[in-house]
Amino acid sequence: MASAENVVVIGKKPVMDYVLAAILLFNEGYDEVIIRGQGSNISKAVDVYNALAHRLQDGVEIVKINIDSIERGRRLIPVIEIIVRRRIA
Amino acid sequence: MASAENVVVIGKKPVMDYVLAAILLFNEGYDEVIIRGQGSNISKAVDVYNALAHRLQDGVEIVKINIDSIERGRRLIPVIEIIVRRRIA
Repeated sequence: MASAENVVVIGKKPVMDYVLAAILLFNEGYDEVIIRGQGSNISKAVDVYNALAHRLQDGVEIVKINIDSIERGRRLIPVIEIIVRRRIA
Repeated sequence: MASAENVVVIGKKPVMDYVLAAILLFNEGYDEVIIRGQGSNISKAVDVYNALAHRLQDGVEIVKINIDSIERGRRLIPVIEIIVRRRIA
């Protein structure tokens, strides 16, 4: 699972905060941005992707979606990574 | 988005119920099974996939993961479909 600088880690903030973070990363020059959510934030990660695609007028496309689980203590927490790429017009 | 007979729609039951449902579909002869979750059940859909992969000793592989949103009233609900295939040994 990725831990690079082009990762937007989904937490408790509103969806639009993460959409903005992703747009800023694209504007910094990253071709790809990874939207990463775990546990109950997974559905918000999908929300962020949908809002981003809507905001950029479908100017993004999905490269790959990874799902996995990570151990936290004795529990397994589900994780999603949505890798998106800016589509060149 | 799919609505065929090989779809396991994730709801409020325990994860293992859906894992069992998926295994039963494979045993009925379906090559592929779709695990579908929406809204807050998206993370449970990922849980179900992880538990299924663990239970079948990696005897399944992901064909594709689709994410989208559906309208419910005025709200957009995020949706995930995890399409899995039984791996032939």
